[in-house]
Amino acid sequence: MCITECNPFRIVPRYNDTMLIKDVGEFGLIEILKKVLESEAFQVDARLLVGIGDDAAAWTTNASTTVLTTDTMVEGVHFTRNPSRWSDVGWKAMAVNLSDIAAMGCHPDYAVVTLGLAKDQPVSELVEIYQGFSAASKKYEFGVVGGDLVRSETFFISVAIVGTSQNSLILQRDTAQSGDTIAVTGTLGTSAGGLRQLAKDPSADTILSRAHMRPTPRVETGSLLGVHGAHSAIDISDGLIDDLSKLCTASSVGAVIDPSLLPVDPTLKSTFPNEWQNLAMTGGEDYELLFTGPLETIQSISTTTDVLVTAIGHIVSGAEVVVQQANESPITYDATGWDHFDN
Amino acid sequence: MCITECNPFRIVPRYNDTMLIKDVGEFGLIEILKKVLESEAFQVDARLLVGIGDDAAAWTTNASTTVLTTDTMVEGVHFTRNPSRWSDVGWKAMAVNLSDIAAMGCHPDYAVVTLGLAKDQPVSELVEIYQGFSAASKKYEFGVVGGDLVRSETFFISVAIVGTSQNSLILQRDTAQSGDTIAVTGTLGTSAGGLRQLAKDPSADTILSRAHMRPTPRVETGSLLGVHGAHSAIDISDGLIDDLSKLCTASSVGAVIDPSLLPVDPTLKSTFPNEWQNLAMTGGEDYELLFTGPLETIQSISTTTDVLVTAIGHIVSGAEVVVQQANESPITYDATGWDHFDN
Repeated sequence: MCITECNPFRIVPRYNDTMLIKDVGEFGLIEILKKVLESEAFQVDARLLVGIGDDAAAWTTNASTTVLTTDTMVEGVHFTRNPSRWSDVGWKAMAVNLSDIAAMGCHPDYAVVTLGLAKDQPVSELVEIYQGFSAASKKYEFGVVGGDLVRSETFFISVAIVGTSQNSLILQRDTAQSGDTIAVTGTLGTSAGGLRQLAKDPSADTILSRAHMRPTPRVETGSLLGVHGAHSAIDISDGLIDDLSKLCTASSVGAVIDPSLLPVDPTLKSTFPNEWQNLAMTGGEDYELLFTGPLETIQSISTTTDVLVTAIGHIVSGAEVVVQQANESPITYDATGWDHFDN
Repeated sequence: MCITECNPFRIVPRYNDTMLIKDVGEFGLIEILKKVLESEAFQVDARLLVGIGDDAAAWTTNASTTVLTTDTMVEGVHFTRNPSRWSDVGWKAMAVNLSDIAAMGCHPDYAVVTLGLAKDQPVSELVEIYQGFSAASKKYEFGVVGGDLVRSETFFISVAIVGTSQNSLILQRDTAQSGDTIAVTGTLGTSAGGLRQLAKDPSADTILSRAHMRPTPRVETGSLLGVHGAHSAIDISDGLIDDLSKLCTASSVGAVIDPSLLPVDPTLKSTFPNEWQNLAMTGGEDYELLFTGPLETIQSISTTTDVLVTAIGHIVSGAEVVVQQANESPITYDATGWDHFDN
């Protein structure tokens, strides 16, 4: 019955001078480093609403609530040396950050960019990357207002974005309530399907590969969530089960989802007839939103946004994420998630 | 007479598909990428006060003026694999960003951090780096509120900081006026002297090496500049001549400085009897502030801050930076500056 223990983050691992990052894992490392800040850094005053651990940090000013997030893409880890289009890499570097801003219920305002560059990179690649930044900037109406160019053996793109909620309503992952309906935007597993296609054929150009290369952050839907009374939200970057588990852990609740309700693109089903459900459950990088709230809130958001919104289950008391179809046995998924240092 | 042409940034280089970054250089690349954003990205409204090209971007909110900056340190470029103390690396990663915030006349509020990490790095190194972050956070009273851990072959630390000016006075580099006195905080060349010592002996522990490893951003002095009526400011990260040239270019003015007035640590003079003046003129990474304004403003700032403030020359009309001691011939310095892709 227990499928996911919802508390992978609570324990601060012990470490000694000989231990390496891979020995404690990504989440162990986060806990260790958080502990250093908690015990040694300046503790910010009451204006700080959200610190480490959510999609973005958030604080109040007199006029609004501001959020700040940063996300980085590294060559060989997050993108390949020779993508079909460098503008897609630029777009995605912005999109993964915009998705975090959307998951806080905010609108993006300003971005700064750092590029780690080798001397022998073609200028035209960087121009295309900036064209990807520009396209995202135009579509989601935020400014790219500065940054830093540094030399690096490994090519990377680091973006930080500031956003605001004018109505001061922000969405967090630690405020889900038992009884909430769980909903997601768009379709799930599409990006993971695209990644599989691209692994076989780097020039694949399908609905799936495009979803992977150029994901659509749900900026417009995100800014509606608070107004309509959603209780909590997170973006789906590491896979449905993994991110739902994070939300449950943060909120000290459990969840039950019905796999037959998951929104899946027909192309994913036809291309991966045996694996589509697993991809929809655990595939990463969809950059859809997962949010919770009363059923009428979900319905009202669904009728207000142009984006597909699907109810997939509900929040329960407890500490487990259970995946169960009506009248069937629960299915077990490995929900240890994407450890960036364990691949 | 002409020592530095103050317009290294104005021309957008032409490039073709075969050209590499090293062919256009850092500043050429910046101009090319800026042009992409200017022609293709969303153009932010009037709330944006400062976009690309200053120490930080700045915009107004109802209550205050907010600034955002990002700066990154890369292993092998900005720090060595085995520094004496990893906490110094963490401190410096924050300090270089804090210096940008100070140069805008603002106080730091919130920082987010991205670490690009290899799997085989010891956890203890990262804990020490976070101790460095924490020490800076405590001293300058800002929160480290989030970030991102990513896998990377090259170790890097990318920081973004948001700051504010409660009185809405921000300092820019493009507002120097002819007749302004030019002043600097602290001493110059100290860090460059330290870097030379460390190149010979990585465990060197002197006033100079400490200035290089653990620079002091002038956060307190920076926040005084606007209130006292300074006209412009920039931080000295790439060397006095280089950064003064940037300020002159941005402000469409020239400058005359007297080398005999430069504040130089006695240890730098005694350690480098033949080179100290050159180090003070062109050495980078001092993270002192250079600012301009009426003489009485400089005097008033000098008496208000605990930090050494020294008048070193004045702003003139024209487009040249002239280095000339009373009754002597002008000295020529190579002020092409630090090109991060030309080393």
